[in-house]
Amino acid sequence: MSQWAFRGRIRVGFQAGIALIVRVWEVRLKALVYHGPGQKSWDTVADPAPAEPTDIVVQVDTTTICGTDLHILKGDVPAVTDGRILGHEAVGTVTAVGSAVTSLAEGDRVLVPAITSCGRCAYCKRAMPSHCQAAGGIGWIFGHLIDGTQAEYARVPFAETSVHKVPEGVTDEQVLFLADILPTGYEVGVKNGRVKPGDVVVVVGAGPVGLAAIQTGALAGAASIIALEPAQSRREHALRFGADVAIDPADGDAEEQVAALTDAGLGADVAIEAVGTPGTFDICTRVVRPGGVIANIGVHGAPTTLHLEDLWIKNVTITTGLVDGTTVPLLLQLVRSGKIAAELYGTHDFALNEMMAAYDTFAEAGRHNALKVVIKR
Amino acid sequence: MSQWAFRGRIRVGFQAGIALIVRVWEVRLKALVYHGPGQKSWDTVADPAPAEPTDIVVQVDTTTICGTDLHILKGDVPAVTDGRILGHEAVGTVTAVGSAVTSLAEGDRVLVPAITSCGRCAYCKRAMPSHCQAAGGIGWIFGHLIDGTQAEYARVPFAETSVHKVPEGVTDEQVLFLADILPTGYEVGVKNGRVKPGDVVVVVGAGPVGLAAIQTGALAGAASIIALEPAQSRREHALRFGADVAIDPADGDAEEQVAALTDAGLGADVAIEAVGTPGTFDICTRVVRPGGVIANIGVHGAPTTLHLEDLWIKNVTITTGLVDGTTVPLLLQLVRSGKIAAELYGTHDFALNEMMAAYDTFAEAGRHNALKVVIKR
Amino acid sequence: MSQWAFRGRIRVGFQAGIALIVRVWEVRLKALVYHGPGQKSWDTVADPAPAEPTDIVVQVDTTTICGTDLHILKGDVPAVTDGRILGHEAVGTVTAVGSAVTSLAEGDRVLVPAITSCGRCAYCKRAMPSHCQAAGGIGWIFGHLIDGTQAEYARVPFAETSVHKVPEGVTDEQVLFLADILPTGYEVGVKNGRVKPGDVVVVVGAGPVGLAAIQTGALAGAASIIALEPAQSRREHALRFGADVAIDPADGDAEEQVAALTDAGLGADVAIEAVGTPGTFDICTRVVRPGGVIANIGVHGAPTTLHLEDLWIKNVTITTGLVDGTTVPLLLQLVRSGKIAAELYGTHDFALNEMMAAYDTFAEAGRHNALKVVIKR
Amino acid sequence: MSQWAFRGRIRVGFQAGIALIVRVWEVRLKALVYHGPGQKSWDTVADPAPAEPTDIVVQVDTTTICGTDLHILKGDVPAVTDGRILGHEAVGTVTAVGSAVTSLAEGDRVLVPAITSCGRCAYCKRAMPSHCQAAGGIGWIFGHLIDGTQAEYARVPFAETSVHKVPEGVTDEQVLFLADILPTGYEVGVKNGRVKPGDVVVVVGAGPVGLAAIQTGALAGAASIIALEPAQSRREHALRFGADVAIDPADGDAEEQVAALTDAGLGADVAIEAVGTPGTFDICTRVVRPGGVIANIGVHGAPTTLHLEDLWIKNVTITTGLVDGTTVPLLLQLVRSGKIAAELYGTHDFALNEMMAAYDTFAEAGRHNALKVVIKR
Repeated sequence: MSQWAFRGRIRVGFQAGIALIVRVWEVRLKALVYHGPGQKSWDTVADPAPAEPTDIVVQVDTTTICGTDLHILKGDVPAVTDGRILGHEAVGTVTAVGSAVTSLAEGDRVLVPAITSCGRCAYCKRAMPSHCQAAGGIGWIFGHLIDGTQAEYARVPFAETSVHKVPEGVTDEQVLFLADILPTGYEVGVKNGRVKPGDVVVVVGAGPVGLAAIQTGALAGAASIIALEPAQSRREHALRFGADVAIDPADGDAEEQVAALTDAGLGADVAIEAVGTPGTFDICTRVVRPGGVIANIGVHGAPTTLHLEDLWIKNVTITTGLVDGTTVPLLLQLVRSGKIAAELYGTHDFALNEMMAAYDTFAEAGRHNALKVVIKR
Repeated sequence: MSQWAFRGRIRVGFQAGIALIVRVWEVRLKALVYHGPGQKSWDTVADPAPAEPTDIVVQVDTTTICGTDLHILKGDVPAVTDGRILGHEAVGTVTAVGSAVTSLAEGDRVLVPAITSCGRCAYCKRAMPSHCQAAGGIGWIFGHLIDGTQAEYARVPFAETSVHKVPEGVTDEQVLFLADILPTGYEVGVKNGRVKPGDVVVVVGAGPVGLAAIQTGALAGAASIIALEPAQSRREHALRFGADVAIDPADGDAEEQVAALTDAGLGADVAIEAVGTPGTFDICTRVVRPGGVIANIGVHGAPTTLHLEDLWIKNVTITTGLVDGTTVPLLLQLVRSGKIAAELYGTHDFALNEMMAAYDTFAEAGRHNALKVVIKR
Repeated sequence: MSQWAFRGRIRVGFQAGIALIVRVWEVRLKALVYHGPGQKSWDTVADPAPAEPTDIVVQVDTTTICGTDLHILKGDVPAVTDGRILGHEAVGTVTAVGSAVTSLAEGDRVLVPAITSCGRCAYCKRAMPSHCQAAGGIGWIFGHLIDGTQAEYARVPFAETSVHKVPEGVTDEQVLFLADILPTGYEVGVKNGRVKPGDVVVVVGAGPVGLAAIQTGALAGAASIIALEPAQSRREHALRFGADVAIDPADGDAEEQVAALTDAGLGADVAIEAVGTPGTFDICTRVVRPGGVIANIGVHGAPTTLHLEDLWIKNVTITTGLVDGTTVPLLLQLVRSGKIAAELYGTHDFALNEMMAAYDTFAEAGRHNALKVVIKR
Repeated sequence: MSQWAFRGRIRVGFQAGIALIVRVWEVRLKALVYHGPGQKSWDTVADPAPAEPTDIVVQVDTTTICGTDLHILKGDVPAVTDGRILGHEAVGTVTAVGSAVTSLAEGDRVLVPAITSCGRCAYCKRAMPSHCQAAGGIGWIFGHLIDGTQAEYARVPFAETSVHKVPEGVTDEQVLFLADILPTGYEVGVKNGRVKPGDVVVVVGAGPVGLAAIQTGALAGAASIIALEPAQSRREHALRFGADVAIDPADGDAEEQVAALTDAGLGADVAIEAVGTPGTFDICTRVVRPGGVIANIGVHGAPTTLHLEDLWIKNVTITTGLVDGTTVPLLLQLVRSGKIAAELYGTHDFALNEMMAAYDTFAEAGRHNALKVVIKR
């Protein structure tokens, strides 16, 4: 897939009467590069190498595009500057290791997760690498503060404390979505929401990350999962991923619809916000019962009004968070034992050099009935 | 089913030329009564009535027999004395309520659980009614310290803090096993064992309560449940109730068999003891990985040797416990939403006046391939 | 203290040559009665008696006034209607018990806490009686939905599941503030905030409930408690109750002041809101570090702006809540063992018939440098 | 302190008429070396250097001796072989760093804790480095599997994920005991025991680690700490470190003594074993109330009899564990804020070259009324 440009032939005398002809190609590595709001291209880029003793380089075998990448392209994430290779999810093969790396070797197949963990700072040690102090308090650095994974090769810092070896028998498609959306749905939605067997859970928004909350909420033993989603195709996905019922906000007030579905009209034990707007967050605060939890997954771009005059007395807990990825190993166990069909998120396949087309499809996911794109070497 | 003995006819003058003929029967209520070790009979017993303002009386519609009842019959539970009606599980209909009872009424269909909760003592208030102080520190009083539920009618103390209304649409068979074995497997096995999504769980013993631990452990998201059980028929049940693999201790050392089934041979995250012998407890301490939990459900009659010389350094947690029943409401939610098939435990049906035959079958459960008996009015 | 009005003399013939003279007084029981916004008076009221089998009546030996009572008097709590006796905290002596009450007797000395618990509903059973379903989803009923404790006698519903016997050797003053502010500070501030040994805790507002959060936060092992409070006298109280430093918002931006006091300027592990205004709540969201907890105690009358555009990524937890009182027994243990000086909150003493003066002092607590008033029979 | 041996003089011609005389000394580094059961000596040893990119070397400024070192000397720890330098606690100064070390530099003052953490394995990532897989499943490697800290210089593997920088203003004596006994008492006793405000805690054994459990248990808000200890001098220490009462097993049955000190004779919420014998462990199982926790800290050399026939019904939790050291940062916060006087454990001071004398004193701690020795450069 890399472009190989023939650069000429060299004749080298070798022994009496024998010469070697060496043909030289230049490898042109390619990657998806951000060039400011609204601008991206599939560019020739430099060949990455380990920069620190704890780095590795991986050949990207499979990657995908995240909703966050679309936000970046809109210019919503100022820390991402012109020239940055995007992408923060990959399954790849190790091609080089730094001098301090002992537990990974060339040829190892690894999952490169969205969050990088230095393993040393107070946040990494408390299993919260989302706030790793090594990069200034944020664990999400790929395709953000350093070059990312929508490329043929990627440099991976703090490799031994960040990547996960992929066990034999697990396909790239099965593990790719453990890089971000599945742990996001599970950690930020289900775990923060403290979903436990028997709970009634409302998930507001059935996009990919909402579906991940639904799928892992069902796995965690919820008695009933109610998806609230205006798009019919997504309501159908919700049911397929484990929701017990999918309701349409157009069919009536969300609070009343949920009340009608719960004992004594009390509402949900847990409300998971998977959209990122003031309106959907507010719905969560109204469908949750006293003593319940509102787990926010949505990426918000604006403040919201919090009705503390109602909520102060309700014994509710509101959580926010970026994924840590600490549950990747257990999600991998569940994939291996067949308890989670993680490959279901991949609805459209592309080759790596079709990256621009993959972006086109993902940017209009609704029109294509797409969840996530799978982009393979 | 009660025996009605005709006691005669009374003629009562009523009005000029008219007389009423009243026919009188004596109702003979029946119950299974313990008469000392090895002795039981289906006796005529007194008609119960509320003794305290917080009591109710229920007509027993469906009941069952517990392994503990067999222990009692062997004489293993000295607190049970001659004349005691046995049984601590029932679905019934309220026939009388004490003067302080406001939230239950005649005709209500209720689940009478194994554990009675006064609602007032420190243990009940911390959601641990297994040690309710009202009856001297033990919440299990039916068929133990007071007359039980293997009877046509039963007096139920502390009714409002103990019984659960059965929702419409739920059958007796679906709710009966929530009186004891399902919450026992879930609370004392799965919850005490802190089973979480992705865990490897070993359940030692696949009798009814072991199966309840398997069923609820699967519901709680275990990645893999390994049942260890010598009887082939029970290994088959184990697989049917949610185990991923069922191994036979005769096929090799348990520790080695489990190690072979777990990554890096580390062993289980959680080992659940569901037999009650020193040997099976010891197996649990050997198949658990460092940092894991051993949850004991088994009723032990003898001390065991604890290898603290190995375990002190292993960061293991050992839990014991009697069921509290605090999870009955959520298990009921799971039954209603179809996530738990609680009726699967009932393999053999009897009428209430076939109680002696029901005991015979249950006492030789292995020969009859029986799990639990369902005894109906 | 009750008013006794002499109603006359009756002469009763008794035996030949002997007569009894009976002198009759009418007892006039008094209580503080709400008469609509801004209106209260010390009125003659009816003599309470048990209305339900689970009721008791107590003679109020010691009571106090809560900030909530001042809110009621402003008309902020519409559920409180004309004629309602106020007050929800008392230490008293049992004078009558309902027919179902077995564990309390006339003469018992009890703490009547702010929250009533039926012991039967799902919320009481999960140790969250603040949302007791018996009174429509709210456990605070005294001086709110039924007559309260600022009276000579008070009827106490669900007595056995609600009140606490006062151990010998504990004074009324030592136990009075366990009715509300101490458990409020501990449960809604420190426990909800998950304060643990070594934490840096910011408490915004050093009124009585903020001081209770400070006192119990220190007890729970916080490494450093920073009080933020504009009033100098309250900052001095803060230091006396266990704060390590008390800062004045007038001395600079709160976020910067807190950052300067914490390692790497990260901010607090836990921020406790003890005022109830949008501004103080917002401060809490800015002084907390990533991964921290904001525990709201304040009673809010208006919505606030929640900066989810900053907070969504910060892994913060926000909690709200009304006190449950489930920690009263353990706070009582701490009082008995001398680990908590609960009597420190009582700065001004009044007799019960000085109730109106007690209100005057408490309403201008700042001017009187008052924390709480102690009103004794 | 190192021995410098003069090895001669070399004359080097330099320029016309000028010569340099170079005097050569050999540095002889010293360390305490194990030579098989009962054998140790203060030997000349090799100069350590970083062996891996993630290593550092520290000059040992202050170290101490642990009870475990005495066990090793008895031959109880077969993994320790002839020639091993002992010791697993130190405060030191970095003298060399491996090529991958970026956050530590020569001259940094660090605490070298008992447990080494690779930061990469599943156990380190779940904050349980006591079972770090890098060294075969055990995080305790100093003075055990590699050379330790009772030496002038020590090589420290996995330095950035293991050591802690010592803040300015904290003395060596204040931080030294955070290497092992304080986190052991806190993590394995108080945290595993889930000690919470208001608890009654029994600590069996008031040696250094028992005292650490007492000191941190008091900090965590226990209402009452009862020390059980036969030696009077240690009972006095117990009271000084925060016990509320110290009882002597010679004064009567431990269970009865504890019952007499607890409400309703229920026993302790938490029993902490800090001796390591079958008898003291058994006492813990008898003094704990139903629903309580037994936290074992003691290092056991023999199995014990576990009375499961009594305990199965008691809802008790038994925990074991080796220290992880994950609480060192928070203990350091508490030291800095003056909430823990960690220097109190050091009762006897020695110079590094008085190591043999320090062992003599510590080996007869009772006779010298010693807790811990402080051994300084």
